[in-house]
Amino acid sequence: MLYVVGLGLGNEKDVTVKGLEAIRSCDKIYMEAYTSLLSFGLSPEGLSSLEKFYEKPITVADREMVEEKADIFLEEARSLDVAFLVVGDPFGATTHSDLIVRARNLGIDVRVVHNASVMNAVGVCGLQLYRYGETISIPFFTETWRPDSFYEKVKQNRSLGLHTLCLLDIRVKEPSLESLCRGRKVYEPPRFMTVNTAIEQMLEVEKMRGEGAYDERTECVGLARLGSEDQRIVAGSMGQLLGVDLGQPLHCLVIVGQTHPMEEEMLDFYRLHGSSNHETNQSA
Amino acid sequence: MLYVVGLGLGNEKDVTVKGLEAIRSCDKIYMEAYTSLLSFGLSPEGLSSLEKFYEKPITVADREMVEEKADIFLEEARSLDVAFLVVGDPFGATTHSDLIVRARNLGIDVRVVHNASVMNAVGVCGLQLYRYGETISIPFFTETWRPDSFYEKVKQNRSLGLHTLCLLDIRVKEPSLESLCRGRKVYEPPRFMTVNTAIEQMLEVEKMRGEGAYDERTECVGLARLGSEDQRIVAGSMGQLLGVDLGQPLHCLVIVGQTHPMEEEMLDFYRLHGSSNHETNQSA
Repeated sequence: MLYVVGLGLGNEKDVTVKGLEAIRSCDKIYMEAYTSLLSFGLSPEGLSSLEKFYEKPITVADREMVEEKADIFLEEARSLDVAFLVVGDPFGATTHSDLIVRARNLGIDVRVVHNASVMNAVGVCGLQLYRYGETISIPFFTETWRPDSFYEKVKQNRSLGLHTLCLLDIRVKEPSLESLCRGRKVYEPPRFMTVNTAIEQMLEVEKMRGEGAYDERTECVGLARLGSEDQRIVAGSMGQLLGVDLGQPLHCLVIVGQTHPMEEEMLDFYRLHGSSNHETNQSA
Repeated sequence: MLYVVGLGLGNEKDVTVKGLEAIRSCDKIYMEAYTSLLSFGLSPEGLSSLEKFYEKPITVADREMVEEKADIFLEEARSLDVAFLVVGDPFGATTHSDLIVRARNLGIDVRVVHNASVMNAVGVCGLQLYRYGETISIPFFTETWRPDSFYEKVKQNRSLGLHTLCLLDIRVKEPSLESLCRGRKVYEPPRFMTVNTAIEQMLEVEKMRGEGAYDERTECVGLARLGSEDQRIVAGSMGQLLGVDLGQPLHCLVIVGQTHPMEEEMLDFYRLHGSSNHETNQSA
């Protein structure tokens, strides 16, 4: 049996009781490293606090392992109970869908334990989830690679009055270009995109395209460490948010569409120059 | 302090450890009745099993109480720790946003405990969440009220190749028209919309509008009791799903947009005439 257990957002106590029981019943526990550790703000010591809470040793599966060596733990799951731990919900990333498809094709029973993910927890900023259009991803621009396919999608969402959730790039354990050329893997230090960088890149694309999808006055919500005790949520124009430091990862960004009065009331709590700014007391 | 605790989907063990600790630490526990009991397949005996698990008595707050009498428990939350329990995630419904706004305006500290909701758990069917357009709601048609504003949204999503999540109407503790006329409240028996009714109504609207947003051949995914042990997921054309009984509530429906190969592989597990149909073993 393969259990794919969503750990939610925040810390080890965001696992569900069902998920915790599944983990504690399993023979082997794997955890995807490349987004998990970062999301939970974990160092290797943090991992041991998870192990203590789960009462089980955890094998960290890095990106290579999940994508290239999944056969190992899928083979184990034929005869043992194996848990694969995922930050957020198991269906937040294509990697996990792939794992589930492979398991099922091998005839392995799969049980999924759901949890919160950025896709629904972003509702905390007050913008109603059913008023979001297509979600976009903003990749780190490089000298030679500045993909702007998100632009059309934002434009489309905004023309429909819809909000846009922007997922920001995470680069963990990326082989360096230099090391790839030499045939030996050396990794770049981890990088995560801030709300500031995302907005900079977006404004650069608007400048190039000039179709008026958005500009410095466009209202946005920047969110950092969603679901954790020190989460921060700030609403303001793109221009304003360029100057706000939301601190440690992970960040995400919402481009605000047409709002209803209730949404406005919620946004008011997070506005930069609002009368009250309660953004730190939103989550336990 | 007001804790707004998402209970997730499925059963009492889908609460997070953080949520459970919050509930157990509170002086008073309220639970919204009008979607919760139905979602958890609960009778009044079911409520006592929740109380046993939470080790706390629960006061069921029906729709009137949440919308009209929230002042009562907001007043309590000034001096006591009060938990308000919500199926799914706290930001799944506008009612809860309203409660949070009111609490904050009264200067009451609010802590939110996130959990899975249909908005992200629907990922289980294999269609990637970032490829969904605007979510629609399908209300029960009556003799005189047949709102079709969802039609434009589906058409828009499909023209963009996006999937559409359709939330289906729930009518619980609705005052009967007759009783409203007499000035004394008598309630209609609870009703929930099935996937079959949703598709019937949608096809009726397509027939009226004739703009070709979808038809009987349009691929859909019907989901019932998402996140529970006996959840069912069936993929097929609208015409096919008309004849499929997904059983007890709650149901929801996804209209499939353009798919990627990975999405197709996942849908294959749920297709009516697929080689394998594992729809019952998806969730623990």
